[in-house]
Amino acid sequence: MPGFVSQARGVAPERIIRLEDDRVVCLDQRRLPDAEVDLECRSAADVASAIRALAVRGAPLIGVAAAYGYALAAAQGDDLAEAAKELGATRPTAVNLAWALREMRASGTDPAALAERARAIHRDEVARCRAMAEHAVAFFDPGSRPLTHCNTGGLATGGVGTALGAIVLAWERGLVDTVLVDETRPVLQGARLTAWELHAAGVPFSLIADAAAPGLIARREATHVFVGADRIAANGDTANKVGTYPLALAAAGAGVPFVVVAPSTSVDLATAVGADIPIEERPADEVSDRYEARNPAFDVTPAHLISAIVTETGVHPAPFGESLRHAA
Amino acid sequence: MPGFVSQARGVAPERIIRLEDDRVVCLDQRRLPDAEVDLECRSAADVASAIRALAVRGAPLIGVAAAYGYALAAAQGDDLAEAAKELGATRPTAVNLAWALREMRASGTDPAALAERARAIHRDEVARCRAMAEHAVAFFDPGSRPLTHCNTGGLATGGVGTALGAIVLAWERGLVDTVLVDETRPVLQGARLTAWELHAAGVPFSLIADAAAPGLIARREATHVFVGADRIAANGDTANKVGTYPLALAAAGAGVPFVVVAPSTSVDLATAVGADIPIEERPADEVSDRYEARNPAFDVTPAHLISAIVTETGVHPAPFGESLRHAA
Repeated sequence: MPGFVSQARGVAPERIIRLEDDRVVCLDQRRLPDAEVDLECRSAADVASAIRALAVRGAPLIGVAAAYGYALAAAQGDDLAEAAKELGATRPTAVNLAWALREMRASGTDPAALAERARAIHRDEVARCRAMAEHAVAFFDPGSRPLTHCNTGGLATGGVGTALGAIVLAWERGLVDTVLVDETRPVLQGARLTAWELHAAGVPFSLIADAAAPGLIARREATHVFVGADRIAANGDTANKVGTYPLALAAAGAGVPFVVVAPSTSVDLATAVGADIPIEERPADEVSDRYEARNPAFDVTPAHLISAIVTETGVHPAPFGESLRHAA
Repeated sequence: MPGFVSQARGVAPERIIRLEDDRVVCLDQRRLPDAEVDLECRSAADVASAIRALAVRGAPLIGVAAAYGYALAAAQGDDLAEAAKELGATRPTAVNLAWALREMRASGTDPAALAERARAIHRDEVARCRAMAEHAVAFFDPGSRPLTHCNTGGLATGGVGTALGAIVLAWERGLVDTVLVDETRPVLQGARLTAWELHAAGVPFSLIADAAAPGLIARREATHVFVGADRIAANGDTANKVGTYPLALAAAGAGVPFVVVAPSTSVDLATAVGADIPIEERPADEVSDRYEARNPAFDVTPAHLISAIVTETGVHPAPFGESLRHAA
């Protein structure tokens, strides 16, 4: 696809998601790693369904998908306010979604211009990924054994990824021995998606049960924890995939760096603190089809447990209230 | 079976495991909750296999199973030193196993006497469970919402359980609203066994992904954390099912009581600190049949994160170095 800088490794951005004349085509992440199947969305409503069902997921990619869905609605002469409302209601926690839709709504109503604006949002996300990875690689030393959670690679961003992009770049530069990958129940984004990406890139890794991570961190079997973010409040409190908070607790206990890597589009200066971030509760049947279940999709890591937040503008140290003002 | 005090609720001790003339019969916990199937062990080697494969699991129950296996070896005229060696090598972390085998080896070689000694160990475990539950119930107030991990009920002990026994007793006394149950990957002892036991007892509960627990504790959706133990070092450091340590970190962060409930047979005064406890690494294919995996079965919770340790002799407060000397 014209306009993307080529990526030496990882999934091509247009393979993960692209806008065609009459559809949005994305890799159906529910089917990975068993099958690489395209999902064709013929309307903004189809895109909204794909986001809700986690066929397309990852905070930055959700923003890109929503932009493409909005552009598709324009191409089809749909009601744009309705399309924005439906797309915006799919997932409550990631702030990139609201950001991308604000950008689209501020770009007029011309279908060709909106298609170009959506593609520019995707290109910008790809560029932000590369910049984040370059900044974050400074945390690695030879022999590093980073631990990561969920999926923050190409499949989450449409680019090289946030936390996983940094890990893969550090590996390419000879700084990573092996990666510990949380399987990330209940949807197994680690065991399915991160494993699929690392395997494809040739990076050595071991899957672990999510609950095993804190004990391995305590025993210093992980040298760093790298995670993404779905929303970063103005004070640095960070909402991310459920199971991130215990990694931060364990990292603080062991003196292991805990680094959040996320584009500035995940920083929400309008949200003061983590307690103000809405936490999505997903369907119970993702956890159990037999018994009653609770299924919060995210948790909040307080700023005081975070060593640094890396965005495309650089490495932001604590106190984040000050440093993040220049990030977003 | 003669000798057991009847249990109003929960699985009958002899249903979980029993010694017959020529076999040890146990409920095959690998098949629960889908099927209630007996496993017949015709030799001490069969019992050892059942323990290794997690058909029989839970630190106190492993001790009982090993005692029955040893008695079976005596009934069949097998080499008792060999039987003890094979049974003792099945699982390295739980100390109850070594304790039960020491008791059996100190009880002579007469098959009838050894059978009676093994049954007495089981009866004592049942009695210890009831005493622990009575002591631990003091932690509950009306409206309590305890969170628990793995399975510490009848299936883990042959009695009413340790942590789960206390929770069920507190529910019977009207002190528990609902229970949060970690699914406990990779073997899902929570989602399969604890759920099966609570459902049978009529106790309301919700399953959660293990990684969701710390966030729910931080939001005070759990009022207590109750867990069992596979081995408690002399200073109070406690090895338990992997994923226990993050619960303790989150409980300490939220000011929520974190209580270990375990029989005195789980206290190992010969092990000074948690770092000296061997951590079993189980087969990788329990985690993934596709990619490389690590599978530590336990983690160690440092004593400073533990509010209290409850054994059959009472509630032991910190500092545990002092209080545990009177527990074991």
